[in-house]
Formats: sequence, C-alpha cells, structure tokens
Amino acid sequence: MLRLKSYLAGTWKDGEGEGATLLDPSTEEAVATTSTKGLDFAEAFAHARTVGGPALRAMTFAERGAVIKAMSKALYEAREALIDDSILNAGTTRGDAKFDIDGATATLAYYASLGKKLGDTKVLVEGEGEQLTQSARFYGYHAKLPRPGVAVHVNAFNFPAWGLAEKAAVALLAGMPVISKPATATALTAYRMMEVLAEAKVLPEGALQLVCGSAGDLLSHLGPQDVLAFTGSADTGAHLRGLQNVIGRSVRVNVEADSLNAAVLGPDVEPGTETWNRFIRDVSTEVTQKTGQKCTATRRVFVPKAKIDQVQEALAEAMGRIVWGDPRAEGVRMGPLASKQQLDDVKAGVAKLLEGGAKQVWQSDASPVGAKGGKGFFFPPTLLRADDPRAAAVVHEHEVFGPVTTLMPYEGNEEPGELVALGQGGLVASLYSDDREVVANMLVALAPWSGRVLVASKKVADQATAPGLVLPSCIHGGPGRAGGGEELGGMRGLDFYLQRTAVQGDRGLLERALGMR
Amino acid sequence: MLRLKSYLAGTWKDGEGEGATLLDPSTEEAVATTSTKGLDFAEAFAHARTVGGPALRAMTFAERGAVIKAMSKALYEAREALIDDSILNAGTTRGDAKFDIDGATATLAYYASLGKKLGDTKVLVEGEGEQLTQSARFYGYHAKLPRPGVAVHVNAFNFPAWGLAEKAAVALLAGMPVISKPATATALTAYRMMEVLAEAKVLPEGALQLVCGSAGDLLSHLGPQDVLAFTGSADTGAHLRGLQNVIGRSVRVNVEADSLNAAVLGPDVEPGTETWNRFIRDVSTEVTQKTGQKCTATRRVFVPKAKIDQVQEALAEAMGRIVWGDPRAEGVRMGPLASKQQLDDVKAGVAKLLEGGAKQVWQSDASPVGAKGGKGFFFPPTLLRADDPRAAAVVHEHEVFGPVTTLMPYEGNEEPGELVALGQGGLVASLYSDDREVVANMLVALAPWSGRVLVASKKVADQATAPGLVLPSCIHGGPGRAGGGEELGGMRGLDFYLQRTAVQGDRGLLERALGMR
Repeated sequence: MLRLKSYLAGTWKDGEGEGATLLDPSTEEAVATTSTKGLDFAEAFAHARTVGGPALRAMTFAERGAVIKAMSKALYEAREALIDDSILNAGTTRGDAKFDIDGATATLAYYASLGKKLGDTKVLVEGEGEQLTQSARFYGYHAKLPRPGVAVHVNAFNFPAWGLAEKAAVALLAGMPVISKPATATALTAYRMMEVLAEAKVLPEGALQLVCGSAGDLLSHLGPQDVLAFTGSADTGAHLRGLQNVIGRSVRVNVEADSLNAAVLGPDVEPGTETWNRFIRDVSTEVTQKTGQKCTATRRVFVPKAKIDQVQEALAEAMGRIVWGDPRAEGVRMGPLASKQQLDDVKAGVAKLLEGGAKQVWQSDASPVGAKGGKGFFFPPTLLRADDPRAAAVVHEHEVFGPVTTLMPYEGNEEPGELVALGQGGLVASLYSDDREVVANMLVALAPWSGRVLVASKKVADQATAPGLVLPSCIHGGPGRAGGGEELGGMRGLDFYLQRTAVQGDRGLLERALGMR
Repeated sequence: MLRLKSYLAGTWKDGEGEGATLLDPSTEEAVATTSTKGLDFAEAFAHARTVGGPALRAMTFAERGAVIKAMSKALYEAREALIDDSILNAGTTRGDAKFDIDGATATLAYYASLGKKLGDTKVLVEGEGEQLTQSARFYGYHAKLPRPGVAVHVNAFNFPAWGLAEKAAVALLAGMPVISKPATATALTAYRMMEVLAEAKVLPEGALQLVCGSAGDLLSHLGPQDVLAFTGSADTGAHLRGLQNVIGRSVRVNVEADSLNAAVLGPDVEPGTETWNRFIRDVSTEVTQKTGQKCTATRRVFVPKAKIDQVQEALAEAMGRIVWGDPRAEGVRMGPLASKQQLDDVKAGVAKLLEGGAKQVWQSDASPVGAKGGKGFFFPPTLLRADDPRAAAVVHEHEVFGPVTTLMPYEGNEEPGELVALGQGGLVASLYSDDREVVANMLVALAPWSGRVLVASKKVADQATAPGLVLPSCIHGGPGRAGGGEELGGMRGLDFYLQRTAVQGDRGLLERALGMR
C-alpha cells in the first residue's frame, strides 16, 4: 500500500509505526498509511528559520511571484493525476475535484501576478508618509517587512489542494517560509502536490515543508515571529488559540471555523424571475457541491413567510435532480462524505437540529448510485425547515457539515438582519433582491456579521459567482463563530505575514533605507 | 474622603463596601476610595449595545469627530484641575502630568480632525473595488462598518488620562461605544475626566462608561462583536487573551504589554557630536520621565564596545543632574513610583537583573527632595551594565518598570539586530547614526522586532521627537512580548473597531447601497 511521508528539512521523512490509514470514502477501502511519530519538528522549524526564511527574504516580491507562478504551472501539469487522487481519497466528483485543484492553481497564479506587479522591491511602504513635527525633515512612514519566523498552516479535510495552495501563496509572496499540515484523512492530494513541487525544484530550499499525519508537538515550537493559520472546526480553533505558547508569545493566529452561512431571499422577488431562479440554483448548488462540505456552503435559508412553501417546493425539486453516489459512476454529481467521522457528525447534527426545532421536509430517497455492499460514507441531500426561527437556537449555532440546509421564514425588512445575526458571525451571506432600498438596508445589517456579502440581482443573475466560491481578490473569513479571521483579499492577505512598523527619522535617510529612492 | 464612583448606564453608581484605597505616592496618604462590588456590568453592556452603539452608528464620521473635538475641548478647559489630580494620585511632576493630560487632549483633537476629513459618510470603502469576472457589472468592494458591539478598554496605571482618551478617541470615531477601566491605583484622573465629560454632556448617551475599581465579572460579558483593548503586563495580557469567552467567541483583543525597548548607538557616532548628544539626552530622558514608568521607556542601551565607558560616564552625568523627590518640592524633575506594588516590583526587578548578569554601575545617592518621615514610593535613577549581553538572558526578558536601564556593548554591524531580537519583540527601538549604510542595514534588522523605529541622525537631532513619545499618526504596539498589538496610526487604528466585509454584486447597486454615489 502507498506510504505517505512528510517533507521536512529538505527531504522525505517517514514516521514510526503504521500510523493512520487513509480510505476511499466511496468504498471504505484503504488507500495509504502515514505516520509522523518520532519526526523532528524542531529541526523543521530551524530549517525554515535558518534556510527558507533568509532565502525568501533575500528575494524581491517579483522574484517570489515567479516562484509562485512556477508552482502553479507545475501543479497544473499534474492536474489529471491530482484529480484522480482527489476522487480516490476524498470521494469527490470530478467537478468537485477540479473545484479544489483548479482553485489551487488559480490562486497561486493570482498571487504570482500580484508579485509581478509589486516588482523589484523587498519592503512595502504603506501610504504616503507624513511630517511629524514642525520640521519638514522629520518624517514618519509605515514599513512592512516579512516576519523572520515560520508560517504554520493547518488545513481542513475538505480542500486539501486549495487549502495548501491559497495559504502558501500568500505566505510565500510575503516572504515567510511555510510548514503545511493537511488533514490526515484526505492528505493524499496535498502529498502529491508536495511530490510534484519537490521534483520540479521550483521553490527555494526550506520555503515549503509538509507534515502528513498527526501534528504531534508541531505547534509547541511556535514563537513570537511565527504565525498560525488554521481552517477547521471552531472547537479545534479555540484549542489552538488557547495554547500556552501561542498566547504567551503573541503568536499571530488566523482561524476560519464554523459558519452558519445564510441566504436571504428579498421580499420583492417573485417566483419565476431571474433573481428567483438564481436563488434556487445557488442554494441547491451550495447544499450539494462537495457534498455540502464547504465552509462557505449555505446552512440557513431565510425567505418571506408568504413564499416559504413555494421555495420549499422549488428547492426540493432542484435538489432532487442531483444524482449522488460513487463519483466514478455515470452521471453522479454528488459523492460521499469524506470520512466515517464526517458521516457520523452529519447524522448526529441532523438529529440535533430535529430535536432543536427543525423538521425534515424533504430528503432524497434514492440509493447511492454505484455503491457496493452497503459501503461508503453516503448521506442524501436533505432539506430541513424551522417555522419559528427564534425558538430554534440550535439551527443558528450548530453547523451540519454535509448536504443539509434549513429553510426559515421571516417577516418585514428588519428581521433578516436579526436572524442572520443569531448565527453569531459567518463567512458569507447572500442576498437576492432587485429592490435598491432592500439591498441598501439589508447590506448594512448583514455586513458586520459576515466576512463577505454577495448580492445577486437581476442584472448580474447570469454573471455573479456562486456565494460559496472564494475569490483570491476578496477577503475570506468572518467574525465571531467563523473564527474572526481574514485570508486572501489580494494585498490584504499579506498583512498577516508582514510586520508593520512605524519608521521615524530624516526623510531622505529613511527613503533611501526603505528603497524608495 | 473622596469617593470615586463608576459611570454606568447613564448615571454614577457606587459599589458596596469600602473597596480599594487610592494613595498619594509621595506621602502614602489616602486620597480616595472606590468599589465596584455589586455593580451590574451586564446592564452596562446592554446600555452600550442598545443605546450607545445605535446612537454612534447613526452619526457620520464628521459628526463623531465633532463629539471627539468637544471632548478634547472640555478636558482642556479642566486641564489645571486634572494636573493637580495627577500630581496627587500618581506622584507625577507637573511636566509628567502634562505629558499624560496634554497627550490625551491632543490625541482626541487629532482624531477629531480625522473625523472631519472623513466627512459626511457612515461606511468606509477600502481601495478601488474591482471587476470579479468577465462581466463589467459584477464587482467587488471591501466595506468597513462599525462592529455592533462594545469596546472594552482596560488601561495601565501609568497613563490614566492618555490611556482613556487615545483608546476612546479611536473607538468612538469608528462608531463603537466604550466601557473604559483605568487601573485602580491611579484612577483619580480618569474619574475626573469622566466627571468633566458627563457634566459637559458632549457625548451621546451610552457612548462612554467608566469602571472605577476592580473589573469583577466585566470581561465575562464580551461577545463576538465586542473588542478588548488592554495595556499592562504581559502576564495579565496573556490571562485576558486566554479567557474562555474571549477565545470561544473570537473577541478581538489588542494587547500592549511588556517591552524591553532598545536604543542603539551606531558605530559611526563620535562623542560630542550632535547625534551623540541627542543619544545621551534621549536615554536619560527615557529612563527618568514619569519615573521610568512608560511602556516605551528605553530598557536596553547597546553601544559599540570601544565606547561603552564613555557612554557610561556621560549617562551617569546626565542622569545625575535629575533632581528627584516629592513633585511638589522646588526643582524636582522626577517623582516617586506610582504605588507600593510598583516600588516592590522595581526593587525585585533590579535584584533579578543583578543576579542575571548585570552589575550596577551608577545610582543616584541623593535623598528624595521633600520626602517626609521615610514615606513615599521613591526609587533613585539607576544605571546597570551587562558586559556579556548574550549571557544575561534576564536583561532581555524582564522589564523593570522604573528609572532603570542597562548598558551593553556590541561588536560589528550585525550584532545590534541580534541583541535587540533577544527581547522577543518590543514597542520601540531607537537608532543613532549618520551613516547611510548603517541605517539601511540596521533598520531592516530592527523593524520586524519593533512596532516603531526612530532614527535620530544629525539632520534631525534638534527636531525629532523622543523615542518614548507616542504620536497618534504612527502605530503604537509591537510583536511578541510587546503583545502583538497595534493602536493609533491615524486611520489604521480604526480597523480594530470596524468589520471589513467583502461585498460583491451589481456595481451600480452596491455603489448606491454603500453611499458612494
């Protein structure tokens, strides 16, 4: 069987013992094993600090951008093999695999182009600078320089390719070396990516290391110039944030966690209109794409009370058209959940919502196409409904990470904002309306509770991206329950990896020292 | 005796029991008492959320700026009384009192003028926005809106006036209501400020509340839209950051904590030059201003090995000229420490440094002028020296918060950066050099370990501010041990109180909704 190793301190290292077994979630057959037992993470940190960091900091933004472009190119050339790995170990359909892998190469390409734009410089100077006293000579600037530490990335099981790439692209462009840890259950794709990148030798030595398997004592090595970016559950996020060395050494932490993402159908939208159709299409896509295993998937759907039955009918119809089963079987558009753990969590989560005020109003009664012998971590597309949203607290608090969403009614123009806020902070909210006043009022109500708000109206119904799609140019993250983090957003993403320093002194002297003249 | 109350939910509230006693640190006589026992902090949070927040969010930036200008004006009118309170309860000299109080009104005035510049708007749109797909209509913006929560400010004992004002100015301009807690031992000045502001009725109801005394369960009420800004010890900062609700609800936290601020004398600077004189003057000022009780005071002084004896002599001479004692006595330029606790900590801290590789090379042998009967928390200006900086770990780790600094030698051009980094992150580093190459190299080495770097060279020797002075236009905060936070910095400071949200949709619709057209 395939054995995954970790790429540390410039070479592939194998842990002791059998370790964890990675499965094919469609068949439950073993695919690979991996272990990190006994691996020397202190050495990996030292390698990043003494080899990778200095190498990256010696490069200009343009040079780092060229490295990232080469990464994108090497991975794109391995695209078909990566798609196969994703189908095998993550149970994705080909479309879902592409969503992950093409998202990875596209995000790398985006940051490569940003590097090119930033050009032949090593210091970013923010804003114009300003005179600080009566003297025209004594001047202040704000300079941004890469932190002389290590960026540790802990990624979620659902996007092994994109998670690795989007975080690494930003850190590397900023000039920080990366140690990346994919979730063990679906690590195969990330492992192959590291193989491709190591063979292509596109990265400076020590700039990117990969941990396949348990994190062990990895995070205990984080110090004051290091950063930790985590995507996963709110519970794990809280655990990481509370680590003694993370708190005591002011390690920067970025968390993307649970999110009860909302879709709101404006009171003005009538059945059959372009905006209505777009709304139905978006919700059914968000519920089922990647089997609902997207942190940006729509978990709560708020619609005008008078239209809730029509929406329910239209959604059930749309979701009912989605064929689900083994992704290798003909016509399948939704695969299994990624692991036994995920399946158990989804079942328990649905039970929790049903106890907490939701009822099940529709569920696919098909059998999973191509499944054999009762094997595979399959769960049918499911629509819940809670007619008294304020009494159903758990619907706003518990994220079911699968092909499940809950429909809820609202009344008036103020209530959607209040109901969305019950989620206590989310990654994305989508709003469907063609009424200017509705959009203006709801946008201001939704925005502080959301990292991103997508407004789908008639004029962009055919052109807007789906709410679940994370673009590298827009920030990704959200307040409160969603972790309070921010990733991507073009240049904004770099700030996490840069130290911003106020620099004061003789204007001419500073401008020369900062490479401005 | 004077009784301090807390200003909560629109009125003055007194806690149960005698509570804490505030002293005159020059005489140890009691000045006031205060208690928060039994006060309803849940009500204070509700008042901020339901009254203060909505009132502030209904205002434009210009309107909030006008409020802040009125605060500055009202406090300026009470300046003489506030200075007397500072001398009485904080043991400051008149000059040190003005440093705190004029810093408060100046920072308020600065943010008032920023508000005026931002003008008649309620939403900040960041950058230009961009086209997100092939369609010219589907556009993305990043909007910043005030968080619909409460800003809790926990301030340090050393700047009761400035601490309250600089944090409140930024939060209020951003549109968040404030609950401010000064350190109990020196709360008198902050209490008087609140009295002045409440009487002047310059603030919207619920926009500013004050807690005088123990924090009790104050912080347990923090939720996902609230923020906590803390200035004080690294230990307390770590405690606050680790609170269960702070972690679990992703409460934004900003910490300003311990900092072993460094001054570096460049290898090129000869005795008697303007830059040399500026260096000696700055260090002796930073060690003794506010009796060394400034988070930005210089704690470590790195000088070329060949010049260390000359520096020691010059520093001892400069520090020896500073008359210290009861600030009300004629000619006194340095007062006592602010409390018995601070005096005990400074004594213990010096002992710790002496055990850890430093030796005492100079200490004022004067008696405190005007002190009576052995009373008062006085400590003499003291100069330590550690000839083997790499062996004296504690000198880089333990901040003695009093009129004490440690002189250390370095060799070569690389070592200063390495030695400064041993402090594991600081608020400010100052560099004294007229050599372009030295400045360019050291600046890049010092910057990632410092929130601010001041370069004092010949051309600005008469014009530069002292390294310990925090200007509202430059960020204040530093990585690692310094807490990893950022305050002020002009517009930069607002970001802590604003939620940044990516907004996607039809360009025209969004621009109208965000008030851009």
